Amino acid sequence: MTFPSAKRPSLSIEQLVQGVLEGDRTALGRAITLVESSHLDHMELAGELLGRFVSVPRNTVRIGITGVPGVGKSTFIEAFGSYLLSIGKKVAVIAVDPSSSISGGSILGDKTRMETLVRNRDCFIRPVPSKGALGGVAANTTETILLCEAAGFDVVLVETVGVGQNEVTVRDLVDFFLLLMLPNAGDNLQGMKRGIMELADHILINKADGENRMSADAARNEYQQSIEFMRAATSGWKTSVDVCSALEHSGMETAWAVVQQFVEATTSRGTFTDRRQKQQRQWLRLRLASQLQARFFADDNVKQALSATEDAFLSGKTTLVEAIQTILAAWKTE
Amino acid sequence: MTFPSAKRPSLSIEQLVQGVLEGDRTALGRAITLVESSHLDHMELAGELLGRFVSVPRNTVRIGITGVPGVGKSTFIEAFGSYLLSIGKKVAVIAVDPSSSISGGSILGDKTRMETLVRNRDCFIRPVPSKGALGGVAANTTETILLCEAAGFDVVLVETVGVGQNEVTVRDLVDFFLLLMLPNAGDNLQGMKRGIMELADHILINKADGENRMSADAARNEYQQSIEFMRAATSGWKTSVDVCSALEHSGMETAWAVVQQFVEATTSRGTFTDRRQKQQRQWLRLRLASQLQARFFADDNVKQALSATEDAFLSGKTTLVEAIQTILAAWKTE
Repeated sequence: MTFPSAKRPSLSIEQLVQGVLEGDRTALGRAITLVESSHLDHMELAGELLGRFVSVPRNTVRIGITGVPGVGKSTFIEAFGSYLLSIGKKVAVIAVDPSSSISGGSILGDKTRMETLVRNRDCFIRPVPSKGALGGVAANTTETILLCEAAGFDVVLVETVGVGQNEVTVRDLVDFFLLLMLPNAGDNLQGMKRGIMELADHILINKADGENRMSADAARNEYQQSIEFMRAATSGWKTSVDVCSALEHSGMETAWAVVQQFVEATTSRGTFTDRRQKQQRQWLRLRLASQLQARFFADDNVKQALSATEDAFLSGKTTLVEAIQTILAAWKTE
Repeated sequence: MTFPSAKRPSLSIEQLVQGVLEGDRTALGRAITLVESSHLDHMELAGELLGRFVSVPRNTVRIGITGVPGVGKSTFIEAFGSYLLSIGKKVAVIAVDPSSSISGGSILGDKTRMETLVRNRDCFIRPVPSKGALGGVAANTTETILLCEAAGFDVVLVETVGVGQNEVTVRDLVDFFLLLMLPNAGDNLQGMKRGIMELADHILINKADGENRMSADAARNEYQQSIEFMRAATSGWKTSVDVCSALEHSGMETAWAVVQQFVEATTSRGTFTDRRQKQQRQWLRLRLASQLQARFFADDNVKQALSATEDAFLSGKTTLVEAIQTILAAWKTE
């Protein structure tokens, strides 16, 4: 079977697998598109495709990066990514973009700022649609990560835009979670901070340059104190705090050193593998649920029952419970 | 059947229905808790409960309110809510709180700022957990809205914290979507703005007080121009822009006048009812999907197949597709 595309010639699963394993970006991009599809046929192909990569374990690290709008996430990713490339890493950047379902454009505006990365052959940048596909952000991001790793990328940076639910989701998909902060966060951010800080393995105060240097140091001390009283995001790892300047590309080496210390510490304690296994279990459940749902809503009997019952429900002739029972009963699984 | 609670005496569905219809806040609170539960027994009771309110149609308006952290959402809701109470409305505030699954605390910090509202008997404030429950934010918020309306609240304000996916979700749950903006939004917010602006029926530039008054007016003109080129969020309604000062309680009457004009315009065109019907269809599908999922994962054969297959999947002995097929096949619906 092939994955049809309106504009481009079809590639067989075999060709996609081969292309991804060779690190071919076009193949990787199309594999991700296939996996994101909520079309029932595509989902089966996607499963087949993903199944081919399970036996390709590699030493990779998945880093979630978050922070409020304006904290400099794009600039940081540009600086951090460039550093990683300079020490020979292959870097994938996955941007979880909450607004792409509307404008489709905002992330691209951001991404063009990552000029060095965009031009580098050892870097791959991809947004994840946060709405639409069955299974949502969590399943799509997991699969995009797996495909990037299969294509030979060592470090996967998962950027979440904004502050909110996606952070919680992304925390569950990565090994290491990095929170970027501003030197002078307003008081009105305080409410947000604590919750997000509890997710972080490392807090980096960005924009520690020019006249912000002093206040960044002050913020570091302040956060250092606050985290003393917080539950750690990762058992066996003490959340750390540092300053950096993405603009001046300073603090990148240290940031990477922290990631490496984290990987060492958690690997030796088994936490690293435990978390990945837990994430894989979660992924299986997500995919089970989305397959179940896709099959259900694609079933002819269900479709018929739904359209018949829906009208009765909308006009108040049947209750939600009755409607649901009628429609569920219409499904005969083989 | 009754809804058991560890600390409080059980209430029968009959008592809950009665209590909600009488506008009793304790009953309303407990009805919402029941509806939020993802426990299979509770879901059935919840369905029964919700079914009892379908035949209680009333003239209500559901207003989504969003804006970046720091824009003054809590202060605005305090001011706008107070105005609505002063003209005899009963107001429910539902806060979609992305961080409640972590700290559980951040929203409460905000809510205590709404002092006037908290103390008023004609106001009801409730956070929606954005994670955990089956069906997620959308189903939970819909049901909380319905229950609040059944309890006699005329205006339901749905506040979303942060910027991102929840906005898109909440847009689909309300009649009218209000976007709060700052007089001097930094350039780094520009990327976000357009997507969210396209969701808005009305844009209010808050903090138009003191020395910000001029820049608020300038921002209004700027936004007025930008929206000229945007697709309208609601067909037949031209997105409008205005300034207000929640701090000084100014602009509240005008804001409510805009809501009323919107309701009139969309009601006469049929858009108002169309949207609500579309939302009800969506709700039926969400609940169908969550019931399906709950039944599936609660099934003994599925549980057994899942635990057996999971290990094979984690150890790489079976692929994702095979694992999913095995587990789906284990489910025999009656």
